[in-house]
Amino acid sequence: MAKRPVPISASPDETPMPASGLPFDDIRQLIAAMPGPDMAAANAVRARDKELTKPAGSLGRMEEIAEWLAAWQAKPIPRVDRPLVCVFAGNHGVVAQGVSAFPQAVTRQMLENFAAGGAAINQICAAFDIGFKVFDLALDLPTGDFTQGDALDERACVATMAFGMEALAGGADLLCLGEMGIGNTTSAAAIYAALYGGDAAIWCGRGTGVDDAGLKRKVAAVEAGLALHAAHLRDPLEVLRRFGGREIAAICGAIIAARSQRIPVILDGYVVTAAAAILHALEPSSIDHCLAGHLSAEGAHAQVLARLGKQPLLALDMRLGEGTGAALAASLVKAAAAIHSGMATFAQAGVAGKGAAEA
Amino acid sequence: MAKRPVPISASPDETPMPASGLPFDDIRQLIAAMPGPDMAAANAVRARDKELTKPAGSLGRMEEIAEWLAAWQAKPIPRVDRPLVCVFAGNHGVVAQGVSAFPQAVTRQMLENFAAGGAAINQICAAFDIGFKVFDLALDLPTGDFTQGDALDERACVATMAFGMEALAGGADLLCLGEMGIGNTTSAAAIYAALYGGDAAIWCGRGTGVDDAGLKRKVAAVEAGLALHAAHLRDPLEVLRRFGGREIAAICGAIIAARSQRIPVILDGYVVTAAAAILHALEPSSIDHCLAGHLSAEGAHAQVLARLGKQPLLALDMRLGEGTGAALAASLVKAAAAIHSGMATFAQAGVAGKGAAEA
Repeated sequence: MAKRPVPISASPDETPMPASGLPFDDIRQLIAAMPGPDMAAANAVRARDKELTKPAGSLGRMEEIAEWLAAWQAKPIPRVDRPLVCVFAGNHGVVAQGVSAFPQAVTRQMLENFAAGGAAINQICAAFDIGFKVFDLALDLPTGDFTQGDALDERACVATMAFGMEALAGGADLLCLGEMGIGNTTSAAAIYAALYGGDAAIWCGRGTGVDDAGLKRKVAAVEAGLALHAAHLRDPLEVLRRFGGREIAAICGAIIAARSQRIPVILDGYVVTAAAAILHALEPSSIDHCLAGHLSAEGAHAQVLARLGKQPLLALDMRLGEGTGAALAASLVKAAAAIHSGMATFAQAGVAGKGAAEA
Repeated sequence: MAKRPVPISASPDETPMPASGLPFDDIRQLIAAMPGPDMAAANAVRARDKELTKPAGSLGRMEEIAEWLAAWQAKPIPRVDRPLVCVFAGNHGVVAQGVSAFPQAVTRQMLENFAAGGAAINQICAAFDIGFKVFDLALDLPTGDFTQGDALDERACVATMAFGMEALAGGADLLCLGEMGIGNTTSAAAIYAALYGGDAAIWCGRGTGVDDAGLKRKVAAVEAGLALHAAHLRDPLEVLRRFGGREIAAICGAIIAARSQRIPVILDGYVVTAAAAILHALEPSSIDHCLAGHLSAEGAHAQVLARLGKQPLLALDMRLGEGTGAALAASLVKAAAAIHSGMATFAQAGVAGKGAAEA
């Protein structure tokens, strides 16, 4: 078992808020102020790629990834030396509706498993030398049950987003986002249903493995939530705070902060993508620095990724969360950077180019 | 650029043959004597997997890979500590038909690039700490042009297969197979056409990037080869020696040797898979220890993999060869072993199981 100690950062249950201003409007301002891609860096990668000792285009998506890294790192030679997995954990009031196969206590137990090095994500991070941080988002204060009221008030939602923004304080050059939270595929399903419409059942998968009766309760909970909040779902930030959870709010914050800090992001599966979907609904370009790490086996992930314009790097029939799909994809992204930066050019290696006369 | 020195082993131009016996029959005997999977080891992985701290089945193909590794390593706890990429290089007489966008001299130039650490495969091996060996298969003696005669005689074909068997002498616990050889997608196309039938054009892709006229010449070369050798294509080993190349023969040998040495194999793209297709045609179970690393963008690779019953791990629109797709897939296989061997069980971690009562 990987024995590297994993720090767990806990959010304060009550986070001080700015004295003035409308909190959600602060978020909107941050999104409006996001930097765009560095096209000069991307163009430098494209130009150098043509000189490398391989047929043009023969590395397919690996070439595209190198260019994407350059654009969002703002570096003409992209590097992945300090990849980081951040896992955000929250508890969900909606578990009272019997939507999960596992008890709520498992959220904290799994955090302890992360800290002890025993979870799947620990092994992947150790295998690929990826940094790993875990964030406890007020686990002792589950969000409100969205079938009965709001998951979060605006103040708590923005405070949690702000906490997520701080997650990158230690620096990184590639961020993999993950989550843990019993009940959180139900929040994600409600978010997708609110953003995209359609029957609740479309968006509800079996999560950690609910049986048929549990799946019916999950669909019923999402339907009840949609009915209760129907008048307030035009604003994606209202969708976020009404359905939660804290981990999805924090991931929204981390995605925003990564953009301004020039850190490309790899999304994980169904729940992490719900945070990206909130931001995409606010401003489609706000997730251009995010790559879909994998296609989850959970729910309607393929439909969501198609709406976001994201083609997943991996499709391994995984549905664990914890950032596992993102971290596996990070190995490919790291390789893409290594290939681009390390390869010799035709001139350096003395290799004849396409169509050259026989020596 | 990765500067680790890479050894290149050269095959003798004339390899001594056994004094007696029919060479191809020796190969058939080796295939008949291949060991099967270790079901006890595979069952041990399946049983332990149920105890690990994750919902059952939630790691999808990563769980299947751990079981596959155990079955073919014959180890109840599979490990990937010494992965190895072997790249076999050969030259092809059929390049005289104008089938490639690059001159034949590039085969040796790229070997020198491998030795100097400048190729794409070097960067991937360095990024994932994978061993790398290169084999020069009599590059100064291109195989015969299969539009005019046989690529190899039986003696040279078996000798090259035997040389490929020796490639694993240094040991490994996971083998990634790669190739280099200007013109070798034309040999692969001829092999597929001979094994599976259909128009030559189905099996001919653009390789390193031939233009329309070059692609027509490639199709014509395969058609000419099929016509010339039509009476002799019922035996897959005859298909191999008549169309070549040496690297495909050596890869057949390496696949056979890996099986008896309990080393699971990751196949690369269109050309490496042609070697697997020869063995599969001889005996379908002979490639059960081989995993398809990726779906190549070259030719009809998807059709070939479907015929072999292989689902590729990656689909990144790559078509470089050199073992690059296999080596990228090796990172996932290594992670699968690390996850299975390193994760805590529910009991060890004190995590409540599915359906457990609330704490």
